[in-house]
Amino acid sequence: MAGSVESRLYTQSPLLRFRGGGKLIKEIKASELDSKKYIAEKVEEIKKAVGGGLAINALSGGVDSSVVTMLGHKALGDRLKTVFVDHGLMREGEPQRVVDIFKKFGVNVELVDARQQFFSALKGIEDPEQKREAITRTFYRDVFGKLVRDKGAKFLMHGTILTDVDETVAGIKRQHNILTQIGIDTNKEFGYHVLEPLIQLRKDGVRKVGKALGLPEEVYNRMPFLGPALAGRIIGEVTPERVAVVRAATVIVEEELAKTGAFQYMAILHKDKVTGMRDNRRDFGQQIEIRCWDSVDARTAAPTNLPFAALKRIAERTTKEVPGIVSVTYNITPKPPSTMEAV
Amino acid sequence: MAGSVESRLYTQSPLLRFRGGGKLIKEIKASELDSKKYIAEKVEEIKKAVGGGLAINALSGGVDSSVVTMLGHKALGDRLKTVFVDHGLMREGEPQRVVDIFKKFGVNVELVDARQQFFSALKGIEDPEQKREAITRTFYRDVFGKLVRDKGAKFLMHGTILTDVDETVAGIKRQHNILTQIGIDTNKEFGYHVLEPLIQLRKDGVRKVGKALGLPEEVYNRMPFLGPALAGRIIGEVTPERVAVVRAATVIVEEELAKTGAFQYMAILHKDKVTGMRDNRRDFGQQIEIRCWDSVDARTAAPTNLPFAALKRIAERTTKEVPGIVSVTYNITPKPPSTMEAV
Repeated sequence: MAGSVESRLYTQSPLLRFRGGGKLIKEIKASELDSKKYIAEKVEEIKKAVGGGLAINALSGGVDSSVVTMLGHKALGDRLKTVFVDHGLMREGEPQRVVDIFKKFGVNVELVDARQQFFSALKGIEDPEQKREAITRTFYRDVFGKLVRDKGAKFLMHGTILTDVDETVAGIKRQHNILTQIGIDTNKEFGYHVLEPLIQLRKDGVRKVGKALGLPEEVYNRMPFLGPALAGRIIGEVTPERVAVVRAATVIVEEELAKTGAFQYMAILHKDKVTGMRDNRRDFGQQIEIRCWDSVDARTAAPTNLPFAALKRIAERTTKEVPGIVSVTYNITPKPPSTMEAV
Repeated sequence: MAGSVESRLYTQSPLLRFRGGGKLIKEIKASELDSKKYIAEKVEEIKKAVGGGLAINALSGGVDSSVVTMLGHKALGDRLKTVFVDHGLMREGEPQRVVDIFKKFGVNVELVDARQQFFSALKGIEDPEQKREAITRTFYRDVFGKLVRDKGAKFLMHGTILTDVDETVAGIKRQHNILTQIGIDTNKEFGYHVLEPLIQLRKDGVRKVGKALGLPEEVYNRMPFLGPALAGRIIGEVTPERVAVVRAATVIVEEELAKTGAFQYMAILHKDKVTGMRDNRRDFGQQIEIRCWDSVDARTAAPTNLPFAALKRIAERTTKEVPGIVSVTYNITPKPPSTMEAV
């Protein structure tokens, strides 16, 4: 993609960073960021790059893809096709909530129901790496890749940020080449372009731009919710029934911890069964593990020192309101050696 | 066993309770208990019952079996054969520590190494009920039952307390008939006698008698440690390797929480694997769950509000010192709906 918009977007200034393929990226720190100017520049760049063509992007509801959607919409209007892929692994009510938020900005988000495809791909898989691989493959190749081809869009907008590039280079995350991921062979099929308008920013810069774009705080300050979504919070097989259990527990945890200001908090469904008791009889059920993290950038994190009353209340509500749960734990391990998500 | 010592021991007074087989038991509350008098009476009763014969008992190191051992030793001297069955599921150094404590009182405890038998019986078993059944059967029938027959003892001393009787009647615990459990058919083999000198007491009464007998505080105030021992704290198969992991975690938890005064605290090894990271690389390992209970009588219990620094320190030590552990949780659920042990 030498000469593509992508390289033009990163090679305009002196403080440079290498990107795969020899491209260079200049970091813009949040403290130095002029959001209004940044937005105006990116909108111009996207307009110039796409010309009269069509662009497409996948919106997840996270801050990165939300900001990309707004920049693309400002530049292209209806020539940006934004899709929200419902893989069945989102939190309670999330797909419709995201669609509704963007409707207020005049952005028509197409909600694609791909639940069946994801659950078929996840059937019988227990290994975390295989689980993530099944989700990534189904998302990019089977669902989003098909949408790109069907809509005839040659421009893809993607919310890659500088931290993603660093982590790929450091070998922490695998190389994310969006075109390869959606099944487009860049050697054979010339003419696809990837636009990554957030690549010079870190998460704090993206949040600043999101705020300047007028996005609601629930979007620009949204808690990290990674690609595998609730599947990353299920130990063992991911089935619609088990997603429903962890989703119900997630509602409780998010309600109870919303005011903590913690970086991220979550419920994790275990596969192990533990002995409990109900009405003076044995009850053999499952555990929900709660994690709540203090962190600046997710590279390291510490469990939050939550009020014990809040923990007790979560345990009480979870064992009462979520069927099959007899026991609740709170994770007390820092990252490292823990990771933030369980899977 | 009508007419046995057992019935004579429980039917002397007006405040009576039925026992299986129509026997009656008078409760003695700890507050009303005259320990010195109780000890003298029980020693006399045991002497009369056993006459010139041999008695046997299994010592686990818990307060009940320790008090029975001391009463029996006072009454019978060397004619009480006390065995400590090492099933391989005890805490670090426990078998030898118990033998050493009783040596100081002139009680010669025979240490029986039955580890191989228990691990064979537990091989491949994951279901908690089957696990408990395998341990009970191996303990009473295969190991202790054989010892009783080999030594020719016709009197068995057993540390049953009134709470055990209540729980059997209420259907919470299964019926504990010691003779049936050790494989003696009471219809066929007439002449066996069971002595249960603690049957009128609750745990607090037994502790009071233990103190009056001069037992060290680590014995008379010992934290409850149930029959299945560390096997009750392993989710999934019980193998020597997995017992070693939970034993190492137990050392840390007991060291760190010794001064809390909590009713009971423990480490539980999970079977579920979770993702962790070491030296910037993924590490797929297991979790240790910590439980620490506030309770008066174990019938209900609440998780202890431990200082967060103590929890963090346990997590730090456990992930550093115990191989294969990448994550540590703290249980925040009361009993009910949780139980105190996990299995």
